[in-house]
Amino acid sequence: MSEPCNIEITAFDWVPDFARGYVRDLRLRWACNEIGLPYRTRLISAAERPEWYFREQPWGQVPYMTDGDMHLFESGACLVHLAEKNNALLAASGQARADALSWLFAALNSLEPLNFEMGRAEIFAKGEKWAKLRKPSLMEEGKARYRRLADAVAGREWLAGDFSIADIMMATVLRDAARAGFLDGLSILSDYLDRATARSAFEAALDEQLADFADVAPAKT
Amino acid sequence: MSEPCNIEITAFDWVPDFARGYVRDLRLRWACNEIGLPYRTRLISAAERPEWYFREQPWGQVPYMTDGDMHLFESGACLVHLAEKNNALLAASGQARADALSWLFAALNSLEPLNFEMGRAEIFAKGEKWAKLRKPSLMEEGKARYRRLADAVAGREWLAGDFSIADIMMATVLRDAARAGFLDGLSILSDYLDRATARSAFEAALDEQLADFADVAPAKT
Repeated sequence: MSEPCNIEITAFDWVPDFARGYVRDLRLRWACNEIGLPYRTRLISAAERPEWYFREQPWGQVPYMTDGDMHLFESGACLVHLAEKNNALLAASGQARADALSWLFAALNSLEPLNFEMGRAEIFAKGEKWAKLRKPSLMEEGKARYRRLADAVAGREWLAGDFSIADIMMATVLRDAARAGFLDGLSILSDYLDRATARSAFEAALDEQLADFADVAPAKT
Repeated sequence: MSEPCNIEITAFDWVPDFARGYVRDLRLRWACNEIGLPYRTRLISAAERPEWYFREQPWGQVPYMTDGDMHLFESGACLVHLAEKNNALLAASGQARADALSWLFAALNSLEPLNFEMGRAEIFAKGEKWAKLRKPSLMEEGKARYRRLADAVAGREWLAGDFSIADIMMATVLRDAARAGFLDGLSILSDYLDRATARSAFEAALDEQLADFADVAPAKT
């Protein structure tokens, strides 16, 4: 691309199959594709997180983003920063901005934590006795919460008027929720998710994340 | 106060003792006190959440906030909105804004979910077998995460230069983390929390939340 490329997104050089296409740098790649903003990636090891990286990203996670000499972490913060570059994905003021912010934070604080805990129970702590015992109540809690989301989404194309960073965030959270089983029977949400992931910017972002992964895990150093 | 009061915060009319001073409308009250912005409250029942309220706040939680004819939910979104009224608690641009946004989202998505799950294990699901079995690994995970936070906070007075909404959010998350036991031995974080809660705006906000609670639970309707 001929435009100057100031955005660098840190992502992983390899992840296991179940995580491919679901790592959270996808959100930033999607926003860049929506805006038409070129970006480059810097790849680090997920298997052996380099200790220096914790000084950039306090939990050693991705994404971490630089924009020229500015730096940010947490996908929510990165999306707000990208959106504020031209306000295409976040209104500058008014109720549309208020709605986009409300739903952006809702996805991250009121919904995704349920996905996190189900991910622990089903993947990272699979086989632990607590995980087996925890799943029924967690499923009940998650389904009730996502059912309330479906009530709110009913009749809307997007969460805050025009497509916004709230939709990027919500759609990526819903992809995980669908895999957890939280969306079973909630066709309002699966239809919303289909609308979001049919966007060409999502498809491009997904291809770009997948293309960055090595086929086999790099050898341990 | 003689200024016009456009901000209305929805809060609870009564909560059990363990929750008093810890309900999340405290964050908004704190920001209003920092900025010198008058607000009024609208009180609803926590014990019997009115069904109409779910159309305003999709999960029936507090806070919900109106500012004239605008409305928002999720404490993170409300703090950004309040801070953008005069940029006293959030820089308008540059690295200070990037840092404040990064830490604001970090508190809500990378730390508070651990508090949520410990709250379920210790309070809401106390007595469940999964809760007892889950606590050791959750404590280990939480302590590791907050230890990384302490590394990042070391040497800083506030998270993003001047005191900001990131500090309001982080301090309220740390108050819960302290009660969960996640901060034991992390004096960098308890010192930071002491600095934050020594601010007169915090003390005023706390008094104002406590003053809104009825002494005894209102009779069921």
